[in-house]
Amino acid sequence: MAEIKNIGVYTSGGDSPGMNSAIRAVVRTALYYNLEVTGIRRGYEGMITGDLFPMDRKSVANIVQRGGTILKTARSEEFRTPEGRQKAYKQLKRYGVDALVGIGGDGTFTGAKVFSNEFGIPIVGLPGTIDNDLQGTDFTIGYDTAINTVVEAVDKIRDTAESHDRLFIVEVMGRDSGLIALRTGIASGAEAILIPETKTNIEALYHRLEQGRRDKSSKILIVAEGDEAGGAFEIGRLVKEKYPNYDTRVSVLGHMQRGGHPTCMDRVLASRVGVAAVEALMHGHSHEMIGVINGQISYTPFESAIKHNVEVDANLLRIVDILSL
Amino acid sequence: MAEIKNIGVYTSGGDSPGMNSAIRAVVRTALYYNLEVTGIRRGYEGMITGDLFPMDRKSVANIVQRGGTILKTARSEEFRTPEGRQKAYKQLKRYGVDALVGIGGDGTFTGAKVFSNEFGIPIVGLPGTIDNDLQGTDFTIGYDTAINTVVEAVDKIRDTAESHDRLFIVEVMGRDSGLIALRTGIASGAEAILIPETKTNIEALYHRLEQGRRDKSSKILIVAEGDEAGGAFEIGRLVKEKYPNYDTRVSVLGHMQRGGHPTCMDRVLASRVGVAAVEALMHGHSHEMIGVINGQISYTPFESAIKHNVEVDANLLRIVDILSL
Amino acid sequence: MAEIKNIGVYTSGGDSPGMNSAIRAVVRTALYYNLEVTGIRRGYEGMITGDLFPMDRKSVANIVQRGGTILKTARSEEFRTPEGRQKAYKQLKRYGVDALVGIGGDGTFTGAKVFSNEFGIPIVGLPGTIDNDLQGTDFTIGYDTAINTVVEAVDKIRDTAESHDRLFIVEVMGRDSGLIALRTGIASGAEAILIPETKTNIEALYHRLEQGRRDKSSKILIVAEGDEAGGAFEIGRLVKEKYPNYDTRVSVLGHMQRGGHPTCMDRVLASRVGVAAVEALMHGHSHEMIGVINGQISYTPFESAIKHNVEVDANLLRIVDILSL
Amino acid sequence: MAEIKNIGVYTSGGDSPGMNSAIRAVVRTALYYNLEVTGIRRGYEGMITGDLFPMDRKSVANIVQRGGTILKTARSEEFRTPEGRQKAYKQLKRYGVDALVGIGGDGTFTGAKVFSNEFGIPIVGLPGTIDNDLQGTDFTIGYDTAINTVVEAVDKIRDTAESHDRLFIVEVMGRDSGLIALRTGIASGAEAILIPETKTNIEALYHRLEQGRRDKSSKILIVAEGDEAGGAFEIGRLVKEKYPNYDTRVSVLGHMQRGGHPTCMDRVLASRVGVAAVEALMHGHSHEMIGVINGQISYTPFESAIKHNVEVDANLLRIVDILSL
Repeated sequence: MAEIKNIGVYTSGGDSPGMNSAIRAVVRTALYYNLEVTGIRRGYEGMITGDLFPMDRKSVANIVQRGGTILKTARSEEFRTPEGRQKAYKQLKRYGVDALVGIGGDGTFTGAKVFSNEFGIPIVGLPGTIDNDLQGTDFTIGYDTAINTVVEAVDKIRDTAESHDRLFIVEVMGRDSGLIALRTGIASGAEAILIPETKTNIEALYHRLEQGRRDKSSKILIVAEGDEAGGAFEIGRLVKEKYPNYDTRVSVLGHMQRGGHPTCMDRVLASRVGVAAVEALMHGHSHEMIGVINGQISYTPFESAIKHNVEVDANLLRIVDILSL
Repeated sequence: MAEIKNIGVYTSGGDSPGMNSAIRAVVRTALYYNLEVTGIRRGYEGMITGDLFPMDRKSVANIVQRGGTILKTARSEEFRTPEGRQKAYKQLKRYGVDALVGIGGDGTFTGAKVFSNEFGIPIVGLPGTIDNDLQGTDFTIGYDTAINTVVEAVDKIRDTAESHDRLFIVEVMGRDSGLIALRTGIASGAEAILIPETKTNIEALYHRLEQGRRDKSSKILIVAEGDEAGGAFEIGRLVKEKYPNYDTRVSVLGHMQRGGHPTCMDRVLASRVGVAAVEALMHGHSHEMIGVINGQISYTPFESAIKHNVEVDANLLRIVDILSL
Repeated sequence: MAEIKNIGVYTSGGDSPGMNSAIRAVVRTALYYNLEVTGIRRGYEGMITGDLFPMDRKSVANIVQRGGTILKTARSEEFRTPEGRQKAYKQLKRYGVDALVGIGGDGTFTGAKVFSNEFGIPIVGLPGTIDNDLQGTDFTIGYDTAINTVVEAVDKIRDTAESHDRLFIVEVMGRDSGLIALRTGIASGAEAILIPETKTNIEALYHRLEQGRRDKSSKILIVAEGDEAGGAFEIGRLVKEKYPNYDTRVSVLGHMQRGGHPTCMDRVLASRVGVAAVEALMHGHSHEMIGVINGQISYTPFESAIKHNVEVDANLLRIVDILSL
Repeated sequence: MAEIKNIGVYTSGGDSPGMNSAIRAVVRTALYYNLEVTGIRRGYEGMITGDLFPMDRKSVANIVQRGGTILKTARSEEFRTPEGRQKAYKQLKRYGVDALVGIGGDGTFTGAKVFSNEFGIPIVGLPGTIDNDLQGTDFTIGYDTAINTVVEAVDKIRDTAESHDRLFIVEVMGRDSGLIALRTGIASGAEAILIPETKTNIEALYHRLEQGRRDKSSKILIVAEGDEAGGAFEIGRLVKEKYPNYDTRVSVLGHMQRGGHPTCMDRVLASRVGVAAVEALMHGHSHEMIGVINGQISYTPFESAIKHNVEVDANLLRIVDILSL
């Protein structure tokens, strides 16, 4: 194994709050160990077009608290082709980059795996996605911020729901995962949550609404966008049909869930795995995502990290039922 | 004019942040002057059904900071009928209420005017609506909070817009009024704002997008829900058709704009007009909305307050154009 | 073991955000299992004076998001005496309370242990403190909220620090524990953190300040109030003496760290352990604090929970050093 | 009057949220009118040392929402000397700067007046200070943000005050002015406010505390740092001496009041006066501060703006008394 001298860092796929904290940690740790660092803009796309630049301490000053990613992100069709990847490799060579840290989700890691196999360049990944749907880490960078953004928005919606005795159906992000819906449902005192991991029983939902209606002045349902019964608008349509005299409203929280200042925990997580990523590369790791499990740094092969069979904690589901009584 | 002994207070129409600060001010001021206060729940609906209760200092403890309205609000069809209003008057008599403070918008004041004329009970109104679309006050209670909620949400959206070089079309509240869109558009550095008060020139919008596209990495358009060119989804459809290679997204902020803790200015405004409302009733005022114009308490007849011809400040519109260059 | 029919719930010691979420969970879970619930105001003090009242679903409506504790809290000298505890027991009898859930920190659990031993009443505890200094749970209820409050305040301070090239010494809560300082130091990009668990090396601090001063325009030091070198004012005094030409300021964040809406994670944690507490009592548990370790509910004897030898994660300390380079 | 070609912009004195929005508006407006813009870092200090640089649209991208000032600020002793000002003028000449916009408070304007008189360079000022203590504008840039920061902090403090039945004495910024204390006192439901503009009557304060104590569980006093009776610690000492059995705490909010994202209104105000400043220079104005009075742009000679005899609105003071009943 050749000694690493210059680490390239990039963000890819959907952005998430805390990516900047992770970039900062990678850059500062590399400099701490007297390595060079190269920033790559717009993920694999910028790698192909050569949008690379040397980073120093100042490059990451005052970004620990910023949402988004200063390296920007993009999806790249060209990187899916051997020709595209060949171009990318040439650019890395040109800039002297001999190892990579990729921050993102499963698209990021899938690309990294193929690329690393083809060109023998060591790559480790950091879990940057608001969805929390990766194996090999308890939480992904951005999840904690996203659920707080949702909870703060639902707190506001509750104010008006209470004032009007309304039923609100709130759609949160999660195309394949109900993990945002699950914790925000508990935290915002939702009547019920609808998630893709469990079959939505619409009759049970009606039952719960009727039961609760007796003495509760307002109601919140949290629906993950990927729920198989349809999103919030479809559930809203069904509820309005069934209970035309309920004052029912739908709210889709949308892209604000991707932004905002990262929470303390997201910054700490990003900082920890950022430090560990550089040290992992120095110790010969590659093809692995760096996460935190039970408070300890963990290393998970890319193919295992992206398996996407994150199970929903049945205990948390049970809590929604008990507390929304 | 008979001396007032018992003031009834109610909120009606759409709720807005700061209504609780106003209720608190009305209650405390009445008690300060040794008057009794009666809370009326759910606006005119509760007046008819008799949902009245005596309020004391404790009734309004620790509510100055809460969104929504502890008195709840509702729309009442029955109050539009003479029979409904007759019932309402009987309930007020039963509880000894001999004057009213109604907090809300034009529906609230229209009802108040008719009711006061029919039964000779003095009523003053307080401007409680996030839309800022009343005459007779520089700002309505809730407007300042709503525009800050919008700006904070757009700040989050900008994080992800910047990271992806995306164009976001953000819809804000304002069925008949572009005042929320106007100030939030300036404050969030929007490329353009689309409001019902001005004819939307779609060609000019295209021109602006093309111009700005040259060197700006992301873009925000703010669309008032009542814009005559259609809401954000329609504008999004047009833009996507015209510029299929732009990465364009639509976000409808929705009901979270109605909730949340009132800002300092909304609490101060609500407190000021709440005090002034009680003093106005004591001095024989009726049929008037109490507002603040140029820092001074102002009294505006209900029929003038609801005229809805609030003009958009041409200077503010001009600023959007200059700054989004 | 007699079957439990009526669970008393109280908060005691310093309040923390999320206590209300925990109270709500205890009440709703008890009702879910058809048990009665009795609220006890002002902790052991109210137990002695008989400030007890029956709670139903409405008692905990719309509190999941509120800071503080609706049951209030107090310190009780009288409860330290056998006579005081005798009075408390009589009050519980009078109201039919046959089991208790106490929410608080080590004072709460110490009292609970003695009381339960004397009168044979089963008691379980929930970890409610911002300091995170209890064994038997990864996090205490309120810690996550407190560290976010600190980080948001330091983000604001950084704005002005950057503008003026100033050095800020910020004191955060933690009389015996540096855990708030530790994570907030990492998250706010602090130059250094000073905590009671490690001997403060003032010469090393000077060295770090000089090193960083070369190219960093502003600096933040985070000092735990219980640091053995003295609080922020003493450190400020030393730094000003050593570097009279630095523009040095001290800020003590103070009691705002105890309040505010609980974060999503604090609400989820509080909800989980609240449900588990009632189920634990039903299954015969007593003398135990209910926490969450590695994502699983855990049961820790009171005497172990309060041992206070929570170690500071050396890895986190190392991260401060690397990243503040 | 020679035509202006290159406008220099600087921030000076204490920073305030919204300064960046103002800088952005000045830069964009100048470019809109095809003028050049030169940024001057660190106020008069940077003017002397020649820390000037050309600004373009990108220089102010994505800063409308940022606290602090990207141009930084500093105090300059040397600028008080004719020699210092001579140096500054030479630097401006060197960079071709032929007009200035200075953003700050009275120190900024005093310097601007002298400098403009000496060298005949036109200068207009923008009111950037959180204290709101300038004549010629209803509000200064940063005041609205600062009062919201205070109110949010006091909301948190109230949570813990309520839980413990405590009396909190909270010190807010305002060395010569009680305007922050005044509005935040009303908005946070304070028992009383103590400000430099009115003689503090300590006996009246005791009376109010005793009266309120009867049925209010907690209390908040807001003290401006410049109150002539001493700051919060001195008031705390007196109250503790008089009422040793009250649970009394002091909290000094400190420098966080200077930072944070500007509110919507601060951004709009900063944008308006930023546009107006450039247009004023183009129309031959100089020696004037640009503000907004009653919704209209206003022009006030520097010597009038800094007169510092901003009166406290007696009506607002009266409201504190009535509502804290």
